[in-house]
Amino acid sequence: MVLGGLFEANGYHSSAWLLPGAQDKAPTDVDYFRRIIQIAEAGLLDFFFLADTPAARTENLDAWTRGPLYMNMLEPITLLSALAGTTAHIGLGATASTSFYEPFNVARLFASLDHISHGRAAWNVVTSANDFAARNFGLDRLPPHDRRYARAREFLHVVRGLWDTWEDDAFIYDKANARMFEPSKFHVLDHQGEFFKVHGALNMARPPQGSPVIFQAGASETGKAFAAETAEVVFGTGATMEEALAFYRDLKGRMPAYNRHPDALKILSGVSIVVGDSEAHAREKWASWQDKVHIDIGLLYLKTDLETDLSDLPLDEPVPPHRVPATSNHHQVYFQEIAGLIHQGLTLREVCRRYNRSKAIFFGDAAQVADQMQAWVEAGACDGFMIAFPVLPDSLVEFTTQVVPELQRRGLFRTAYQGTTLRDNLGLRRPASRHAR
Amino acid sequence: MVLGGLFEANGYHSSAWLLPGAQDKAPTDVDYFRRIIQIAEAGLLDFFFLADTPAARTENLDAWTRGPLYMNMLEPITLLSALAGTTAHIGLGATASTSFYEPFNVARLFASLDHISHGRAAWNVVTSANDFAARNFGLDRLPPHDRRYARAREFLHVVRGLWDTWEDDAFIYDKANARMFEPSKFHVLDHQGEFFKVHGALNMARPPQGSPVIFQAGASETGKAFAAETAEVVFGTGATMEEALAFYRDLKGRMPAYNRHPDALKILSGVSIVVGDSEAHAREKWASWQDKVHIDIGLLYLKTDLETDLSDLPLDEPVPPHRVPATSNHHQVYFQEIAGLIHQGLTLREVCRRYNRSKAIFFGDAAQVADQMQAWVEAGACDGFMIAFPVLPDSLVEFTTQVVPELQRRGLFRTAYQGTTLRDNLGLRRPASRHAR
Repeated sequence: MVLGGLFEANGYHSSAWLLPGAQDKAPTDVDYFRRIIQIAEAGLLDFFFLADTPAARTENLDAWTRGPLYMNMLEPITLLSALAGTTAHIGLGATASTSFYEPFNVARLFASLDHISHGRAAWNVVTSANDFAARNFGLDRLPPHDRRYARAREFLHVVRGLWDTWEDDAFIYDKANARMFEPSKFHVLDHQGEFFKVHGALNMARPPQGSPVIFQAGASETGKAFAAETAEVVFGTGATMEEALAFYRDLKGRMPAYNRHPDALKILSGVSIVVGDSEAHAREKWASWQDKVHIDIGLLYLKTDLETDLSDLPLDEPVPPHRVPATSNHHQVYFQEIAGLIHQGLTLREVCRRYNRSKAIFFGDAAQVADQMQAWVEAGACDGFMIAFPVLPDSLVEFTTQVVPELQRRGLFRTAYQGTTLRDNLGLRRPASRHAR
Repeated sequence: MVLGGLFEANGYHSSAWLLPGAQDKAPTDVDYFRRIIQIAEAGLLDFFFLADTPAARTENLDAWTRGPLYMNMLEPITLLSALAGTTAHIGLGATASTSFYEPFNVARLFASLDHISHGRAAWNVVTSANDFAARNFGLDRLPPHDRRYARAREFLHVVRGLWDTWEDDAFIYDKANARMFEPSKFHVLDHQGEFFKVHGALNMARPPQGSPVIFQAGASETGKAFAAETAEVVFGTGATMEEALAFYRDLKGRMPAYNRHPDALKILSGVSIVVGDSEAHAREKWASWQDKVHIDIGLLYLKTDLETDLSDLPLDEPVPPHRVPATSNHHQVYFQEIAGLIHQGLTLREVCRRYNRSKAIFFGDAAQVADQMQAWVEAGACDGFMIAFPVLPDSLVEFTTQVVPELQRRGLFRTAYQGTTLRDNLGLRRPASRHAR
């Protein structure tokens, strides 16, 4: 079972920062993150993952001041570079947008992180999903979904080409003959495509993993095709086991068309995990956090992910279904989840309260949480989980000290890191250089 | 006296990697760099600086295999993020090109490095100076010098605007009222210029230093105007004290026109330092390193910096002055140094041997080196030095254990770090937010 952790400063739950134990200034405190990642590594998690958005929000500021997201965070690649030295085994996954970076810079930053961490880097390839980001990079709004993915596909192709500049044994350090490298093992990329023209070569030895591990999270049709062709870890969607199963079968079923074996891709279901003395106790904890979410924040999440503003509607009446836009351009799965809640006839307040960005929530004591995790994996709904810890460090400590031992007792999770690289621990093959003979 | 160090893997001298004690694979070994920066911090240097070029060279490979430069290096921002945790006081300066990055990404990366290092980040603003880099970013060749500087100026303006998104006391973490920040202390940049359109805001609290320290190295007319207006540390040029003096007076003299006090900019002369038991011993060491430089590498440096290929000429005859191009587009000061050597009537071999990229070399025992440093500073030729250590770790160890104590005895250099940020140690003012009332 693969276990990754999604880390936001005080936790994934938007009320986490309001709780009495929450550390102020956590979003920009590297020492705080050092303590968190050390707990995650002690718990043997496969990787520590940081989501990202390259923009503060510039509207609805009075509402955003109630929520912890988007407005204040360290840049993920620099933060993970800093955390690499505090850890020795846990993978380090950062998000970077193909819409707002140049391929050469991304190739270099992640290759460097892979060297710095001795083979523990992963790149979450995203196309970004908000117009605030677009406006930071010269555009008025985000390009259409399919254009973003077309650029992403070409972008990744260029980045992989640059990572293969040097064969693994190109640098020989032959002092006697004053030859640092073997020129025949150096390969210049000559790419001319729709979005990029790159005639050049990466000025860095091949990354320890050959290629940092490629993460993706897209769940639209285009996103699934892209993932089936190129991804090695996908954050799967599905708030129920049935939805996750359908997603899993769909995505893995697309892989043979790209000559890929299903084992070359690990699908991790996104879940929140709430451990308590009992299921009732865990649910009470969650409810107490939900009670603290100001309705303005709930409405703002809806506005962001449904791409329309519902704040003029009465809170305690059902949302008129005609208010759901005909199409979406941002997170299509989030859009569909909200539309589904509205079509159930829920009130606006209930839609806000139930919406959880396509994540299941596992409640219970350690054994009950382990039961659910085991059931999903054994049913073939996922290869593991991408855990959004609601409250840090508490949710992480509870998980690693209570649920991890239970999973270990059942033989479902490692008792020590097996390999030295993230690829080793994930059971992913190290790609050979395209130029190796 | 300000002392910065320019660090290249095995040392600044192109033969450093060939010496018996040179560590193989140093260019991509973060643990090696950790040892080096700890020596530099023990020696109380103001900052650890990394030059950069975003491209491997794709021509003359048989020659490049003899030299350590350009072909294999970690990306500087990630490397410094990793080194921040190993150190507590020394500044961390990285180069990033305004020609091949987006302002938002640079603003974020350096703001993050500043948070991660608790206020020790510096950004060396460069426009890049080779066509190999241009080809990695969709261009056939570098834009003209003046266009690059025009873009750089606007780029820096945007980056500084983004760093001022949040006032220093914007984040209040008022849990009782569920207000994380004060919206009136959040400022959206609305920039529309010749090169960039940015309507947005940085999603990170203001950097600890207000702004990471701005480094520059340009010495062309355009470069000096840009530095006089915006730089806080400049790597000065001049292979002799007279040249350095002229550069210093010229640059500081331009500052009042921009309403800047000369103390707001520190000019550090670029020097190589070779410590021996005596001056003769130091010169012997340098000569022994020079003897190991393959002529192909010398010719390649000339080709790069003179922007023309002289390798068809006989090595032991004077270079015909008509072979010097009429104009340069890359490093103008390097170009002028080579042209000067050619106009002295030197042979091609001698031009290669003497060319040192506009750096003086201080030879001697500790007292003699300190004498020269003292003389330059007291003459007003510089505020300190940017030391290119020829061979690592030896040259650094010799400097920090022999010359630094001598400078301390003379009262010319600190005996402990005074401040907590790089600005404090450099004696540079922390800029107030443009929005502070």
